[in-house]
Amino acid sequence: MTKQVATNITWHEGSVSRAERNRNLGQKGATVWFTGLSGSGKSTIAVALEQVLLQRGNHAFCLDGDNVRHGLNKNLGFSAEDREENIRRIGEVAKLFADAGLIALTSFISPYRADRDKARTLHDDDKLDFIECYVECPLDVAEQRDPKGLYKKARAGELKGFTGIDDPYEEPLGAELVLRTDRFTVAECVQQVLDLLEERGILSA
Amino acid sequence: MTKQVATNITWHEGSVSRAERNRNLGQKGATVWFTGLSGSGKSTIAVALEQVLLQRGNHAFCLDGDNVRHGLNKNLGFSAEDREENIRRIGEVAKLFADAGLIALTSFISPYRADRDKARTLHDDDKLDFIECYVECPLDVAEQRDPKGLYKKARAGELKGFTGIDDPYEEPLGAELVLRTDRFTVAECVQQVLDLLEERGILSA
Repeated sequence: MTKQVATNITWHEGSVSRAERNRNLGQKGATVWFTGLSGSGKSTIAVALEQVLLQRGNHAFCLDGDNVRHGLNKNLGFSAEDREENIRRIGEVAKLFADAGLIALTSFISPYRADRDKARTLHDDDKLDFIECYVECPLDVAEQRDPKGLYKKARAGELKGFTGIDDPYEEPLGAELVLRTDRFTVAECVQQVLDLLEERGILSA
Repeated sequence: MTKQVATNITWHEGSVSRAERNRNLGQKGATVWFTGLSGSGKSTIAVALEQVLLQRGNHAFCLDGDNVRHGLNKNLGFSAEDREENIRRIGEVAKLFADAGLIALTSFISPYRADRDKARTLHDDDKLDFIECYVECPLDVAEQRDPKGLYKKARAGELKGFTGIDDPYEEPLGAELVLRTDRFTVAECVQQVLDLLEERGILSA
């Protein structure tokens, strides 16, 4: 298996810097952290935002229950300890994606302030590359939507420790964005995130 | 905070497909899994490969001890159970990166065949998008290099369960590539990986 070796391979000491990655991808890596009640619209906005970013030629990736709870975090349950570990791992993976130059879109209830703050502080410059988006929606509206039938189960006592019913949701105090999904359309919410990403220079205007 | 909402936001049902991502990034997502003894040259090759890929305009990201052991896996030690979980999580994260369209370069000793095989089977089409690269090097050569002084510590009994000394390294049986770092230069090893990535259509030739 002797092959012609290209003579134009050159590299420098150390890893590729984040600045080099940013140039290569034409954007800055960042995490957009959606938090809010079940049914508030986190995933709907994240999925729509991801598509719009790709249409613009940007590079984003959604981390959500589908690809995290059944994969990386499939060995975690819903005890207090496991919930904390769930969010910790998601924060670490989002940071890796941001380091890789992508825009990580995380879509988890993440009800506890302390857990979200820990995810924030993992990031390089957490005032720039971590954007907490509170997807706000009154409980009764979220419960009426109940896309997965979870509120119904929680009200029936079949689900214990359900956020908003018998477990608290701690509202963000310093979220970069508050997206009121009971007042704005998905397109309007997506636009608000895009505007902030441009303001911060994560996306080119 | 009323903003002008762009009218050109459109999206479709469901998430962005892997095919769309591949078009967007001009490559196919994949995992290149480097395995081998400590000091065999895994990280040297991975870092060099990452740089060459970025120079070509491709998008890759190294997962290694520096960014995983101190982050996502910082709550894991070196018990048999923790080692298995370490590699499991790395496999899951590499799969997420491959799903995102990036070329994940993992650089871990990953001494056990069963753990590597599990990482492989997580991937969508593990005969295409998972490339096991056995970074082979005789133990005495790796031990002479001893870049981190770990063999010395292991021989002195200060490190227990060190691969190659008092813990086994299970050689890959079906690795896509075997890179003999005692016989080939780093540039030559990098070129071998690039050739295979082109052959598989992960990179455009």
